[in-house]
Amino acid sequence: MKIFQGNIASPLGFSADGLHAGFKKRKLDFGWLVSERPASVAGVYTTNKVVAAPLVVTRSAIEEHGQMQAVVVNSGVANSCTGSQGLADAYSMQRQAAEKLKLEPHLVGVASTGVIGDLLPMDKLEKGLEKIVINGNADDFAQAILTTDTITKTVAAKEMFGSDEVTMAGVAKGSGMIHPNMATMLAFITCDANISSQTLQLALRQNVETTFNQITIDGDTSTNDMVLVLANGCSGNQEILPETAEFEKFSQMLSAVMTDLAKKIAKDGEGATKLIEVQVVNAPGSKTARMLAKSVVGSSLVKTAVFGEDPNWGRILAAIGYAGADITVDKVDIYLGPIPVLLSSNPVAFDDEEMQDIMQDDELVIKVDLHNGNSKGTAWGCDLSYDYVKINALYRT
Amino acid sequence: MKIFQGNIASPLGFSADGLHAGFKKRKLDFGWLVSERPASVAGVYTTNKVVAAPLVVTRSAIEEHGQMQAVVVNSGVANSCTGSQGLADAYSMQRQAAEKLKLEPHLVGVASTGVIGDLLPMDKLEKGLEKIVINGNADDFAQAILTTDTITKTVAAKEMFGSDEVTMAGVAKGSGMIHPNMATMLAFITCDANISSQTLQLALRQNVETTFNQITIDGDTSTNDMVLVLANGCSGNQEILPETAEFEKFSQMLSAVMTDLAKKIAKDGEGATKLIEVQVVNAPGSKTARMLAKSVVGSSLVKTAVFGEDPNWGRILAAIGYAGADITVDKVDIYLGPIPVLLSSNPVAFDDEEMQDIMQDDELVIKVDLHNGNSKGTAWGCDLSYDYVKINALYRT
Repeated sequence: MKIFQGNIASPLGFSADGLHAGFKKRKLDFGWLVSERPASVAGVYTTNKVVAAPLVVTRSAIEEHGQMQAVVVNSGVANSCTGSQGLADAYSMQRQAAEKLKLEPHLVGVASTGVIGDLLPMDKLEKGLEKIVINGNADDFAQAILTTDTITKTVAAKEMFGSDEVTMAGVAKGSGMIHPNMATMLAFITCDANISSQTLQLALRQNVETTFNQITIDGDTSTNDMVLVLANGCSGNQEILPETAEFEKFSQMLSAVMTDLAKKIAKDGEGATKLIEVQVVNAPGSKTARMLAKSVVGSSLVKTAVFGEDPNWGRILAAIGYAGADITVDKVDIYLGPIPVLLSSNPVAFDDEEMQDIMQDDELVIKVDLHNGNSKGTAWGCDLSYDYVKINALYRT
Repeated sequence: MKIFQGNIASPLGFSADGLHAGFKKRKLDFGWLVSERPASVAGVYTTNKVVAAPLVVTRSAIEEHGQMQAVVVNSGVANSCTGSQGLADAYSMQRQAAEKLKLEPHLVGVASTGVIGDLLPMDKLEKGLEKIVINGNADDFAQAILTTDTITKTVAAKEMFGSDEVTMAGVAKGSGMIHPNMATMLAFITCDANISSQTLQLALRQNVETTFNQITIDGDTSTNDMVLVLANGCSGNQEILPETAEFEKFSQMLSAVMTDLAKKIAKDGEGATKLIEVQVVNAPGSKTARMLAKSVVGSSLVKTAVFGEDPNWGRILAAIGYAGADITVDKVDIYLGPIPVLLSSNPVAFDDEEMQDIMQDDELVIKVDLHNGNSKGTAWGCDLSYDYVKINALYRT
């Protein structure tokens, strides 16, 4: 597999674009993604009981029809907690986009992200829809879906399946209200592989637990977040079937794309100055290991300590202890980068200067060895800075 | 029942004091509390798997002997995550304090709070123990147990039991690493009632779920936290027995003292500028109602919005949605103070100036009516400010 510089329209048969429709003051805020033919589709959605209107519309289209050919997205207004009017607006967004693209409405997915509680300004949406052209600048799609993100998040990969080259690309947004459970944030992945919707869903499910579900910014699970994967078969490869070597290869490709996007989201967490990766090893099970890793990376006290470049490992052990896992904690090792700070649950002295070098880096790896099983799990997050507070105290007003 | 200005030594037969022993640079950091006779005792402890050494010592003394006559506490160093040496030090603290007070060691409880991972400086402890005198200034005890707290937290109450006046007093500390589960933070409650340890434990258990367990500052459950209640019987009242009207009266008194301390802890959360009280009503069960209230009050996004005085009610509904409760969310009402912002899950327009008045207050009541049952629950917390980040980025170094 080869990771390369590409965009969401790199796979054969896809085009994408983004523009300014007026949901936000100046920035791009309306994007669309179209395949030249109906594509297989798989999705995972927020587990929040409060589900935003566009998710209801998109999920029901996918569940009822199992194919998708286009996705339209706006940022700035989330169309969430907007009651019956919001749901009518989301259906209208789907129908109007379908008319413009000359597709059946059920082939069009809709997504929104931004402020919760405001109705979608339909006049601005119509202005956006009017301007849709095919074969635009796909890099603008990655821009158009952002909210408080500071950078676009894109990845592309190529792999041979038989004699056919399959290309996959992903784009994501997400910077706050990030604490995935099933799936959180918006991510769109395109692929020109020949694979059924059912098999695609299998591959997505298989990888979401170890990638997007292992990042946390602030512990808040959004009402709007979803991951959609579209595969249009344009590469001409033989159909990828479950429980085959080709499926494993495809799943690994998808895992690489999803892990890359997940880490990019964590690193661009609201106000973040550092990426934190927590590896838990020798735990009694993978699920436990992932849960422990996520507990550490989600701890406000660990996050503020990392922001302060303070090797406060006691907070790491405390977060392991309160995670709710059935584990023993009497022989725990903790490493900050390569430096051991706790061995067999007893503190270890370390060199302050060496430690300072590790803590000043913009990526910190925390490794926790439980010596209580042989499973491992990784989670990603970011530090908690003054800017997180600033961004969220002032986001709406 | 009458709440009055008192301190931890207000109940008959108790004395307390605090002094500077050197665990901290300048502030009081060593306190003790003594009863003139062995008292009934009840305790609840952190549910963190990582339990600090002093808790192990105190819990085992209570479990094995069921009485307590003195408690010694230091702040500045938590004696947590300190391995076998830390446990030996905690036992030594208990033994040395018992010698000084001429008591059996099992009648002495020990507690520590402060930085995790550092060994207890035993020379400083000895210096503190040397200076113990009976009948000191009980207000200094409340000072001596603080860490990042900005104010002392004390409450006292009186109530008649038959012809005897019973006095109860409580003191607590806690400002960060506050997310109780069973019990978190340090709280000591004294009482001169005649009640067995077993009945006292019943009353404590009954009230901890609705008071201390309903506050959260940062979602981090500490390794050191416990609540101890001592009742020495000095008031001479007839023994309070379970399942009697007198027990109910006693339990309500304890509830009032614990609720008062819990709110004081929430209001003095690290960096806090506002107390947030979340009331969830008409929920399918009390436990669900409490869980939902705690989810809202614990949301980083709600907390930052309150800090920014932004009526961002969408984040409140989102936190209800991701709490993991089995509820319906299609007819939710939300009020900020007296102002409705969501009725039957549809947004309601409000007057900006009226809202500004509510948001600028130093206490905000958020009420969520689920219309999905008839149980209620309350939780308390505080806003998330720049100072929370500052305090925790720089606490250790």
